[in-house]
Amino acid sequence: LEADILDWAKQYNLPQQQLEWYQKSLQANTLGGKCNRGMSVPDSVSLLLDKPLSEEEYFQAAALGWMVELLQAFFLVSDDMMDGSITRRGKPCWYRQEGVGMIAINDAFMLEAGIYTLLRKHFKTHPSYVELMELFHEVTLQTELGQLCDLLTAPDDVVNLDNFSLEKYTFIVIYKTAYYSFYLPVALALHMLNIATPENLKQSEDILIAMGEYFQVQDDYLDNFGNPEHIGKIGTDIMDNKCSWLVNQALKLATPEQRKILEAHYGRKDKAHEAEVKKLYDELKLEQLYQQYEEKRVGEIRTMIAAIDESNGLKKSIFEAFLSKIYKRSK
Amino acid sequence: LEADILDWAKQYNLPQQQLEWYQKSLQANTLGGKCNRGMSVPDSVSLLLDKPLSEEEYFQAAALGWMVELLQAFFLVSDDMMDGSITRRGKPCWYRQEGVGMIAINDAFMLEAGIYTLLRKHFKTHPSYVELMELFHEVTLQTELGQLCDLLTAPDDVVNLDNFSLEKYTFIVIYKTAYYSFYLPVALALHMLNIATPENLKQSEDILIAMGEYFQVQDDYLDNFGNPEHIGKIGTDIMDNKCSWLVNQALKLATPEQRKILEAHYGRKDKAHEAEVKKLYDELKLEQLYQQYEEKRVGEIRTMIAAIDESNGLKKSIFEAFLSKIYKRSK
Ligand SMILES: [Mg+2]
Ligand SMILES: [Mg+2]
Ligand SMILES: [Mg+2]
Ligand SMILES: [Mg+2]
Ligand SMILES: [Mg+2]
Ligand SMILES: [Mg+2]
Repeated sequence: LEADILDWAKQYNLPQQQLEWYQKSLQANTLGGKCNRGMSVPDSVSLLLDKPLSEEEYFQAAALGWMVELLQAFFLVSDDMMDGSITRRGKPCWYRQEGVGMIAINDAFMLEAGIYTLLRKHFKTHPSYVELMELFHEVTLQTELGQLCDLLTAPDDVVNLDNFSLEKYTFIVIYKTAYYSFYLPVALALHMLNIATPENLKQSEDILIAMGEYFQVQDDYLDNFGNPEHIGKIGTDIMDNKCSWLVNQALKLATPEQRKILEAHYGRKDKAHEAEVKKLYDELKLEQLYQQYEEKRVGEIRTMIAAIDESNGLKKSIFEAFLSKIYKRSK
Repeated sequence: LEADILDWAKQYNLPQQQLEWYQKSLQANTLGGKCNRGMSVPDSVSLLLDKPLSEEEYFQAAALGWMVELLQAFFLVSDDMMDGSITRRGKPCWYRQEGVGMIAINDAFMLEAGIYTLLRKHFKTHPSYVELMELFHEVTLQTELGQLCDLLTAPDDVVNLDNFSLEKYTFIVIYKTAYYSFYLPVALALHMLNIATPENLKQSEDILIAMGEYFQVQDDYLDNFGNPEHIGKIGTDIMDNKCSWLVNQALKLATPEQRKILEAHYGRKDKAHEAEVKKLYDELKLEQLYQQYEEKRVGEIRTMIAAIDESNGLKKSIFEAFLSKIYKRSK
């Protein structure tokens, strides 16, 4: 599939140097991740069909999965620039690699463009071609709106806890992560199989957005309370002034004195400040609060799954598969 | 139309702060230009119909024109970041405005997303809806490829004239500018009127790409030889290490000694260095060379226009209108 994108770049007589650059950017930015999002397209298609995929089915589903990975690569390359991040997947971020710098902005655009190249090449005659394009447009914009809200709510440089709120937290999480990571792969699978009825899409959206929200709350919980050896990294949300679930809960529960502690120590790039916040999180029993949240939320999600109408080809097993991957995960 | 984009942003319960931000970005980045590219859609539609437009026709054509302006805004916001530019249209570049910074990357994405929002809202039932989306995808990618070639050929910091060549120059100019500025508006007009046959598109592409190339050569010529009072700015291509038509011609004509002068003085941020290059341009008679190029190229373009087959609804007058706007322009 990489070859497909490059093939068509060749068709424009792109000079060799540029072609090699694009190839390098595609490889550096789409490989090396876990491909969870991409793989969930073929997984979902297989569950919907309730059988292993034929070679052709697998190819189609995998192509859609790669488009999700391209979309994610487009977001990650640019997010790392906007956040001034240092490493990604154990290597320097793309924009920090030798000779890249601000060119990474254009590289991000070209990763996005790769989606529509693949779509046109492999789905032009598919009955849902228009809907697939619209779906990518819509999810892209939703993610950008979530990103905007995140950037305005938790700027790197100014710490202002008045900006935070659970409503904004929920908006950011749903738009910035849940749509493209959870809803998009299943919606693509439904379109591929021509069973993307409004009812099937709506039921999937409701459950998957709830699941995406739960996943991110979990991520924020693990950032502070998880075992770094399991997660593979040491959490930095407190020092990075992140609008995380924990700080929003802390703000909600804090007495005026406790709030002062947060004001004084949150978002400072310093282990001693961080320790004060961690102490407060323990005092506020946020770990237990999370456990309660998890049980309640997972219960609600299970109820939603149980209520699914399978008569139009949707399958509960898709959502059960997603849920079993994340419930009580430690990494 | 701004309201259309925001309307639909509202539909996502975007927090007020984010909505205001998006509105500010739309206004700052699409207004204040000359709107040449945007206006050429209604102009072309009117010439194709050979009559003034009805209100509805004008609205449709203007909507497509705004999409071209959104695409341009997306490119300009990001180009200014990649070039480290200071001002745009007499104001600080968007990324340099108060509180913006790297958020401008996401703002650029959201300007791009505006195209597909408008398209969906106003052209969803148009017979060419798919082709319109594909056209925007394709022209976006072409421009990004041109931009990549430009960035790799003429980096800000490293001066290496071996990188330059007239072939690369032509590639950059055609992909980075000609497709979206010249071909796109006419192709949109043809689609709007349902006369975008492969023949009509191909004839338009051939002529408009030639015209776009001529336009950029002219731009490079005026940067050095034009009257700053007419152009409204003082040329900086020499100091900015631009891969311009003039330096490529100079490299082609230069004796080994003259090439040394270029090596020693091109791309230095210094008026004295610039003056040496300007002197060499005069010695090499690049002004006269340009005059010859212009006469020859315009002659060729006129021949192409004369040969147009108007039997499928295409009109020579469109191309004559474009040409008369740029021939012998001094600004
Ligand atoms: Mg980040
Ligand atoms: Mg971020
Ligand atoms: Mg995290
Ligand atoms: Mg520039
Ligand atoms: Mg540039
Ligand atoms: Mg210029």
